[in-house]
Amino acid sequence: MFTGLSAFPLTPTGEAGIDERGFRKLVERLAAAGVDSIGALGSTGGYAYLTREERSRAARIAVDAAGDVPVMVGIGALRTSDVLALAEDAQNAGASAVLLAPVSYQQLTDDEVFGLYEDVTAGLSVPLCVYDNPGTTHFRFSDELHGRIASLPNVGAVKIPGIPEDQAPARVAAFRNALPAGVALGVSGDQFAAGGLNAGADVWFSVIGGLLPEECLAITRAARHDAARAVELSQRMTPLWKLFGRYGSLRVTSAAAEHLGLIGSPNLPRPLRGLPAEARQEVADVLEALEVRA
Amino acid sequence: MFTGLSAFPLTPTGEAGIDERGFRKLVERLAAAGVDSIGALGSTGGYAYLTREERSRAARIAVDAAGDVPVMVGIGALRTSDVLALAEDAQNAGASAVLLAPVSYQQLTDDEVFGLYEDVTAGLSVPLCVYDNPGTTHFRFSDELHGRIASLPNVGAVKIPGIPEDQAPARVAAFRNALPAGVALGVSGDQFAAGGLNAGADVWFSVIGGLLPEECLAITRAARHDAARAVELSQRMTPLWKLFGRYGSLRVTSAAAEHLGLIGSPNLPRPLRGLPAEARQEVADVLEALEVRA
Repeated sequence: MFTGLSAFPLTPTGEAGIDERGFRKLVERLAAAGVDSIGALGSTGGYAYLTREERSRAARIAVDAAGDVPVMVGIGALRTSDVLALAEDAQNAGASAVLLAPVSYQQLTDDEVFGLYEDVTAGLSVPLCVYDNPGTTHFRFSDELHGRIASLPNVGAVKIPGIPEDQAPARVAAFRNALPAGVALGVSGDQFAAGGLNAGADVWFSVIGGLLPEECLAITRAARHDAARAVELSQRMTPLWKLFGRYGSLRVTSAAAEHLGLIGSPNLPRPLRGLPAEARQEVADVLEALEVRA
Repeated sequence: MFTGLSAFPLTPTGEAGIDERGFRKLVERLAAAGVDSIGALGSTGGYAYLTREERSRAARIAVDAAGDVPVMVGIGALRTSDVLALAEDAQNAGASAVLLAPVSYQQLTDDEVFGLYEDVTAGLSVPLCVYDNPGTTHFRFSDELHGRIASLPNVGAVKIPGIPEDQAPARVAAFRNALPAGVALGVSGDQFAAGGLNAGADVWFSVIGGLLPEECLAITRAARHDAARAVELSQRMTPLWKLFGRYGSLRVTSAAAEHLGLIGSPNLPRPLRGLPAEARQEVADVLEALEVRA
């Protein structure tokens, strides 16, 4: 499950709810491209904005549309009792794994975050991936806390934020040291993925992989045998990484999916808004220059 | 509505849901003490962790228990459509005002936050208080954005974070300049409230006022005619402000309410946890030293 390219699709959502047809199409496309797993309802999949019913429905669509490709489903919520209900729904939908970030309103303590994972992992029958995303949760894990949580039953992987290439070997080694054997290490932060994979991470949890699976599979496969080639393929996408930095990966991916004709507009639930016209043009220009096709 | 002391009670909540009797008691106590308004379901009232049904029920209890004291109800949520539903529920419950923070998972842009307030204020029949709380939302308002939002119809007040006493006169003056006439300015950050009121803020939105209304009313009333006395009364509570800084105002207030015998334990929904035993003892010692009684 936790190896290679894990692609995180958008869940196109307007004020009337999820565009289920659009979502199904995005997932089918990933399965057809041969990604190693699909991460439904991640941050890019807008999990934090959707109701329990919408999330249950999206999980079922994802599992169905993914065919033989295993699906991990995001179960994060502010309240533990909601997370437990979402974990049950995800498992009932056929998820092969669940993804959990310590979503915060009040700043959480280390003991509260440990308690959250303790409460949730106890009842799981599929592996859980610990989702470390300080950009959205504003919680910072220490390596020590990662190690404690990863030692709980049913923890299968840890998804860490992007690490600049020059720091990746040391950080990946430090994480390996902190995590029990058998717990997979996954990198995110698309622009840094080649460096992370080259440094020995097991899996790339990818935003852009949810839209451009072939380009990302090429990077992932190259990292297995030709580190320099993986870096080169990633560097080719620098104009896209720059747009991610400027506008955020979610809004850029949303505009890109629209430009490629895969989903309609609007596809982000308010208060989120699509990019303004000028920024959309930049996204279109970059996709054209990269010769990306749907 | 937006003047004097606005007291924000806890909403005691365990894994079985809201302790409605405990919540009613807290609100009745505030009304009996003569606070100027009550802020139900603020951050201290745990709004972000409660379901729509729980929030609707708590709003009705608060309005009923408050008698003649006006009640403002927190309507914040990640998704605009949820905020709109919560606004309707709050108004149906009899709220005299609503309180809205730009709750964030994805970092919001200024235009998205403006759009949120535009969408929500359009349909209101009670005034809205803009809730600026970067500690929980991680969104930072510029004075310019505050001014634009405060110019929308039905905006009645802005609740700003605490300002250190020496900066309060300049910041309060700058806010006044940015806000349209008729929009009230309220300070929070309990330890800085005396300075903010002395600098001319209209209202103190108070966490500890939800538990110790008499002590906070004394500070608020003093600020109207004797600035030095307001500061002196606030400084007397320095040991409490220090505990707020160390453990967070929510957990300290929760432990204090328990120590005073007003609510049971646990009273915070998981993953939040009450303070550990040693910290509870510190809270108890400070309350004893301040000669606080329920």
